Amino acid sequence: MRYNPPVQTVTVNLSGSAYPIHIAQGLLAGAGEFVRKLLKSEKAFVVTDSNVGHIFLTTLVHSLEKSEFQTVSHIVPAGESFKNLAQIGQIYDTLIGGRIDRQSIVIALGGGVVGDMTGFAAATVLRGVPFIQIPTTLLSMVDASVGGKTGIDHPLGKNLIGAFHQPLAVLIDPETLKTLPARELRSGLAECIKHDIIRDADHFSRLESSIERALKLDIEYLGDLVAHNVTIKSRVVEADPFETGERAHLNFGHTFGHAIETISNYTYTHGESIALGMVAAARTAHRLNLLDADSVESITATLAKAGLPTGHLKLDPAAIINAMIYDKKVRAGKIRFVLPDRIGHVVIRDDVPTPLVHEAVESLRS
Amino acid sequence: MRYNPPVQTVTVNLSGSAYPIHIAQGLLAGAGEFVRKLLKSEKAFVVTDSNVGHIFLTTLVHSLEKSEFQTVSHIVPAGESFKNLAQIGQIYDTLIGGRIDRQSIVIALGGGVVGDMTGFAAATVLRGVPFIQIPTTLLSMVDASVGGKTGIDHPLGKNLIGAFHQPLAVLIDPETLKTLPARELRSGLAECIKHDIIRDADHFSRLESSIERALKLDIEYLGDLVAHNVTIKSRVVEADPFETGERAHLNFGHTFGHAIETISNYTYTHGESIALGMVAAARTAHRLNLLDADSVESITATLAKAGLPTGHLKLDPAAIINAMIYDKKVRAGKIRFVLPDRIGHVVIRDDVPTPLVHEAVESLRS
Repeated sequence: MRYNPPVQTVTVNLSGSAYPIHIAQGLLAGAGEFVRKLLKSEKAFVVTDSNVGHIFLTTLVHSLEKSEFQTVSHIVPAGESFKNLAQIGQIYDTLIGGRIDRQSIVIALGGGVVGDMTGFAAATVLRGVPFIQIPTTLLSMVDASVGGKTGIDHPLGKNLIGAFHQPLAVLIDPETLKTLPARELRSGLAECIKHDIIRDADHFSRLESSIERALKLDIEYLGDLVAHNVTIKSRVVEADPFETGERAHLNFGHTFGHAIETISNYTYTHGESIALGMVAAARTAHRLNLLDADSVESITATLAKAGLPTGHLKLDPAAIINAMIYDKKVRAGKIRFVLPDRIGHVVIRDDVPTPLVHEAVESLRS
Repeated sequence: MRYNPPVQTVTVNLSGSAYPIHIAQGLLAGAGEFVRKLLKSEKAFVVTDSNVGHIFLTTLVHSLEKSEFQTVSHIVPAGESFKNLAQIGQIYDTLIGGRIDRQSIVIALGGGVVGDMTGFAAATVLRGVPFIQIPTTLLSMVDASVGGKTGIDHPLGKNLIGAFHQPLAVLIDPETLKTLPARELRSGLAECIKHDIIRDADHFSRLESSIERALKLDIEYLGDLVAHNVTIKSRVVEADPFETGERAHLNFGHTFGHAIETISNYTYTHGESIALGMVAAARTAHRLNLLDADSVESITATLAKAGLPTGHLKLDPAAIINAMIYDKKVRAGKIRFVLPDRIGHVVIRDDVPTPLVHEAVESLRS
């Protein structure tokens, strides 16, 4: 009996090549068939982490073996602190020791850290082999699955080493979200809310009432939400593949957010940090007379509904401002902000008066 | 006073982008001006090795600083055994510790090992920064300066990790060959002879009498020889950027040669190994009635004139044949040979009878 669920497919078109993102309940157990349709290779290498591995690895390997892949698995320790060159070295050992060739497939099973590291190993072993992503967190489904960024951290900063390497395909099974810790689910919702604020007022207007279906793990809703979000991100990335213009819109909430994430020493998740960042950016936009007060309220309320922080920040505002100045996105000393001028639309501004920036950060404390 | 020597320039056109290879006596001391014309960056990072560094690094750094680059140097230990991930990690430390940005330039000063490693670091730091090669060995001038292959070795094999990353420019100063050990100069000549055998009968016909000018370090001759050879390699690579067809012609002599290099445990240099490989391939072509005896003789004589080995091989023929079978270029169990059917032209054959292969290897023993 063949696997045949309803599948939603979003195609990402980038620099002459295109790849599909397939979204379907139960897709993990049918992954082997999907991968087999894409290529004839004998060998599949699966990289996962110690959290995700014990939940999903057996299902995936079983599916691959049913489709006649010889499968080799590699488990990295879970966590951003292991996203480093030493772990990449161990992944190379497994791939090369397993006699990988240019027709072999490398599969990342897990969240953003696993996807980034595995993608980088796939981009560089034999100068590049085919790569498939099976993201298992909401954040990696809606964010890392589009754009082709792969990489690792360096002790002096995150994602400083890497390569662009587009996957052959992305397979998303929203069922995998059932075992995701609630805090990580909410973190992913922050990126979903961001996408609507920068591009889709209509969808945003329904979010405040519908988003609790995500928190209740309504898998059908989550599948649709993922499809909607990868579509938005794909369109933005396709319009600006070399990051020279509108792709920066995806950084809405990130100027403040990255600084909060860094200064909190990652005690705030990425999603929590950018939720706070989006509140600060919305308030800044309001103070510049770009955005009305109702829209600011609506952004804050939706984030709160998703269980994300919108205030009560306990960090030192001066340290946050300082971190913003040292962010790698700062050009020629000017901090660039992505600010909504209405819900569904943003503009880039590098002329925000410093007192307003301070005021916005300060406002997050209450 | 500005630097203004006669410069020969060969342009390499690859997948929509193009870069120049500039060749000029004394170019090293004028490198800063050339680099400055190409980009406005503040920072230049120079990677070299412990052999080349003490001869040329001061000259290059002085030239860069005169052209107002802040220069950071990194010296790797000399030798293929250091072309590994640990050294790449140390290069990353220098680049990132020196606050590299996407406008900075990374310069490789040295032979193939330095070029490959530095190119890989440049390809992957910040997901790719501009890169300039200043090759100082004949082999790296005529071979590694064209094609954009970068990478490192893995304990299980050479060049198994890497990326394609085209340089912004290649600067070649044939004067640097004056300090190159004679054996390495001869090794580079093997690739030069190879290029003529696969593409240029006319130039080949003059090689036997002219090549001793190279051995006598006639710098003008060496400059012309390098220009001729990068032109041939560029045209071959341009015609087949994705290595699907005629680029394989560059592997003439390499099927036998790689095996000899491996089995000798690198006591034969790359050039010496492929010299022997070219003799074996020419004899195989003759036995298949592809190539006349005079041409075989002429190939052997030219290699001998360049001081390269053409016989007296002391290795076990069975071990060499075995290594050929395990070479990564073997497809579906068939060994592919690049064989001349006349001087200046080669064909690809995967149907060479095994006894002829044995016979050719055996013939290298006398």
